[in-house]
Order: sequence, then structure tokens, then C-alpha cells
Amino acid sequence: MASAIDELFASAAAHENEFEGPRALIPSKHVALVTCMDSRIDTFRIFGLESGQAHILRNAGGLITDDMLRSLVLSQRLLQTREVILMHHTNCGLHNLDEPAFRKEIVADTDHDAPYAFGSFTDLNAAVRRAIVRVREHPLLPHRDKIRGFVYEVESGHLREVIV
Amino acid sequence: MASAIDELFASAAAHENEFEGPRALIPSKHVALVTCMDSRIDTFRIFGLESGQAHILRNAGGLITDDMLRSLVLSQRLLQTREVILMHHTNCGLHNLDEPAFRKEIVADTDHDAPYAFGSFTDLNAAVRRAIVRVREHPLLPHRDKIRGFVYEVESGHLREVIV
Repeated sequence: MASAIDELFASAAAHENEFEGPRALIPSKHVALVTCMDSRIDTFRIFGLESGQAHILRNAGGLITDDMLRSLVLSQRLLQTREVILMHHTNCGLHNLDEPAFRKEIVADTDHDAPYAFGSFTDLNAAVRRAIVRVREHPLLPHRDKIRGFVYEVESGHLREVIV
Repeated sequence: MASAIDELFASAAAHENEFEGPRALIPSKHVALVTCMDSRIDTFRIFGLESGQAHILRNAGGLITDDMLRSLVLSQRLLQTREVILMHHTNCGLHNLDEPAFRKEIVADTDHDAPYAFGSFTDLNAAVRRAIVRVREHPLLPHRDKIRGFVYEVESGHLREVIV
């Protein structure tokens, strides 16, 4: 069967001559953005970002896990970002996921119990608010005054802010 | 002081009318890509991706943490991806970071010890190989035969494969 990776690797070689020149390690807008891995979220296009402007952190759900906090601490302390955008989205795979059933399927299939919670949630706005609070309360982050949450609507491309 | 988030939010509103129409939840290329949060990595542009084609997972370093494994399990079991790209890059903030010194600074500044390792590394190719092995060995992932590792060169835009 054809591999999608072969195709993407060939595409990357073709795009290499469009390289717009090297940029500095420090993001010029001093912003870090945490969002979901969802395939419909093109962060550069949505925010009109160019190479070198903002850190992009993504996991399933855009949840504030220890890994995202580790990354934000490096982003702020080592690489000089000062603001954080937390973006969830509509039609997320974790929204209303039946997590106990999902775990059960995994055990039946692999004989292993998942050693982590998957992070399903039922209320989208509440999930954004939890993310904001979790980042605001992380004592290792030096910049916690500009942390804001948003929902991206994958049906329309509309972005709306969630106020805590 | 002006907020970069205000500027990016305004930019998102301006880009909303360029929305290319809704796409399905399942990524059409059935690929998940794990890479670093680095601001110079525009995954859609590098791989010629369009909205709806691939999951994008990003943390500091593009390291395979439990959070990335959690996300990959959801990506494969819930959302039908079958291949994984693991991409590190040159000039990474974690490459040769003096992690003990970094931790010491944090304690001096906040009176808190970081409850996680930051993941500094010294050999870039070895870090990619470790990532490949870690994903290949994760028993909860149903698709582990097409997992490949790459280094993106931020100085030139060149992408090269790392063979285990």
C-alpha cells in the first residue's frame, strides 16, 4: 500500500525552494499558542502568522497537561514568550467521548490498561476555562497576566473568546 | 503595553472570510505528525498540507512524552490515522540545554522545583531515533509499522530522514 509519508516527504522536497529565509530562535511576537492536534486547525493561516513569530503547542484536545506546562516554561524562560493563547475547537474528538468504554476497548484489544487519562470533556467553554486557570496557577511561569482562551469553530472558521 | 493576542485575534477575524469550507473530523491522509513548538516550523507549508489532512502534535522538542502517546492513541484508535511522522529540527532550544542550571534558576526564582524533566538532549539524530523507538514500543498503538523520523533544517528548509 502507498505510504502517505512518502508523499508528504516528496512534497516537502518540492517546497524547499520556497523557503523564505532563516528566522531567529526567539519568537518575534513573544506568544505561545496551545491548541488541539485536529487536522482542520492551520494555526499559521488562522492567525496570519509567519515563520518565526509564535510557539505552537498541540496535543489531543489542546488540554493543559504537564507536557504543555513543561513546554510553556521553556517557551517563557528560555525563549522569551510572554503571552499565551489557549484554543479549543468545536467537533473535537474528546468532546463527549465515552472514556470508560474507550479504555475498555483498549484493554480488550491489547491486554493493557492505559496508564494515562485521555481527557474527555462534556462542556466546551468550561474546558477552555479550566485550561486558563491551570496555566494561571502554574508557579513556574513568569508571565501569567496575558493568558486568554478561545474556541475555533471548524464549521465556519470563526474564532470566539471565552472569558473566565 | 499592546497585546500580541489582540493583534492575532483581529487577524483571525480578518482571515475568517478566507475559510475554505468545513472538512471531516477524520484526517484524510491518515497521518499524525509530532514535532517541536518552534516558531519556524509551519507544518502545513512544509508538507503542502491542507485543512483536514493530518493531525499535528507539538511540544517543546517534539519529544515522545506520555501526553504525545495519549494523543497518538486517540489519533489512531478514535480518528483512524495509521502512520506517524516524528520530526525534530536544528537549532532547537533543548539541544545542549544545561538542564541542571536551568532547574537551579527556576528554584532560585520561584522557590519551586520543576515536577518534570525538561528533556534536553545532546545528539539530534539519537533523539529522533529514541522518539521512533518509543512510539514503536507503545503497546496501545494499533499501527506501528509506518513510523518514520526526520530532521528539519531551519537554516535552509531542508528535510532529511533519520534511519533507525
